[in-house]
Amino acid sequence: MIRLICDPEQVKHSIVNLTPGQSHYLSRVMRRRSGSTVEIHIPSIGRYVGEVLSASQVQMVRKLPEIAPLSAYVILYQALLKQGHFAEVVERATEAGVSEFVPLVTERALVRSVSPQNLARWKTIAREASEQSQRNLVPVIHPDVGADALVLPPDVTGLLLDPDGLPLISYFRGLKFDLTPRIALAVGPEGGFSDGDREHLIQAGMTPVSLGPQIFRAVNAGAFAAVVILTLLQHA
Amino acid sequence: MIRLICDPEQVKHSIVNLTPGQSHYLSRVMRRRSGSTVEIHIPSIGRYVGEVLSASQVQMVRKLPEIAPLSAYVILYQALLKQGHFAEVVERATEAGVSEFVPLVTERALVRSVSPQNLARWKTIAREASEQSQRNLVPVIHPDVGADALVLPPDVTGLLLDPDGLPLISYFRGLKFDLTPRIALAVGPEGGFSDGDREHLIQAGMTPVSLGPQIFRAVNAGAFAAVVILTLLQHA
Repeated sequence: MIRLICDPEQVKHSIVNLTPGQSHYLSRVMRRRSGSTVEIHIPSIGRYVGEVLSASQVQMVRKLPEIAPLSAYVILYQALLKQGHFAEVVERATEAGVSEFVPLVTERALVRSVSPQNLARWKTIAREASEQSQRNLVPVIHPDVGADALVLPPDVTGLLLDPDGLPLISYFRGLKFDLTPRIALAVGPEGGFSDGDREHLIQAGMTPVSLGPQIFRAVNAGAFAAVVILTLLQHA
Repeated sequence: MIRLICDPEQVKHSIVNLTPGQSHYLSRVMRRRSGSTVEIHIPSIGRYVGEVLSASQVQMVRKLPEIAPLSAYVILYQALLKQGHFAEVVERATEAGVSEFVPLVTERALVRSVSPQNLARWKTIAREASEQSQRNLVPVIHPDVGADALVLPPDVTGLLLDPDGLPLISYFRGLKFDLTPRIALAVGPEGGFSDGDREHLIQAGMTPVSLGPQIFRAVNAGAFAAVVILTLLQHA
């Protein structure tokens, strides 16, 4: 079933007013006419079966059971990458289960800031990937921050992906969390973090961890690490 | 360092005779001239530092330490996918740590056989992805097989990725393997396995397992599952 994520403000008297983007997607791209059914997800309110009334309106018909929550709230501090690769990270890592993105400016990076156009594009990609992979939220994408100026929120467990780090499975063994853990995960650019970056991130409270002897491309590493973390924490 | 995976037959008196593809990559794409160094990996023989002699020959100079082996030998039974998506699976899953691929023909699949051209292309992609991600082998790509005709080798643990399956972390908890485990992992096409496919695969000896509540795209699911399996088995 087609799935649309909507804000509470879009709903009035059980009728959802679609955004122009959603309306275009529903009627032009997916060619759904009035009478067909879609799934409407309103984060922190619920999931509903909806009936298409017109190209711009959907009637909420009945509530669906909640989607099981993920085992951790992962914030990906992803180093900026060349070309369109950050967009690929947003798509793949949203699907993998990342809940927030912080673009990280690293020492060796050629890309040193995020344009408003790119930020807007990444937000669209995050929303579409959320809808396709049945996430119960749309990941937030933050403004960029320098690796040398990073301050972690006080309630997170900070991890830094590093081939020489502690194996992730050893790191989590025996750890217990009372609430859903919040994990801040830093992933480097092509060629990895510089020694300077690594030092800054460790100073900020991140522990180097590794997934194994494989060498991952920067575009995949964050998604791979997120899936592993979310699996390892399923029974922590 | 540039890394080339070579067959033992390419080596004579510590001189490696490059294939036309390797030669093109080294001299044209990467523009390495005589005197520059590369890494030569000869599976089941070893890794060497090599010095470029000419566009077609490399002198082996000294042996490098072995790359740590992966925790499992994963054979991915991947359902054939639309368009070029199987090629993406080969690239991403090789990087993730898959060691063999078996293209699987499923009930709902539009693509029902593998052309010799595609098979050749996938083998090239597997080789390149191996070189880039420092795998110590080039994954084998087998001819296609029908999900209804699948026979698993006797020494494998068969798993079938299924949103309703047993959580993978529960499946592996407490399991001990004397040797490096051989895992046969089946991943469905877009839209998932049909009930018929699932029944055939379970009959063939596969157990349905799940990675969590996320819905993964067919193009990513195999790579994600492989990384998780290889992590979970690191200390099994």
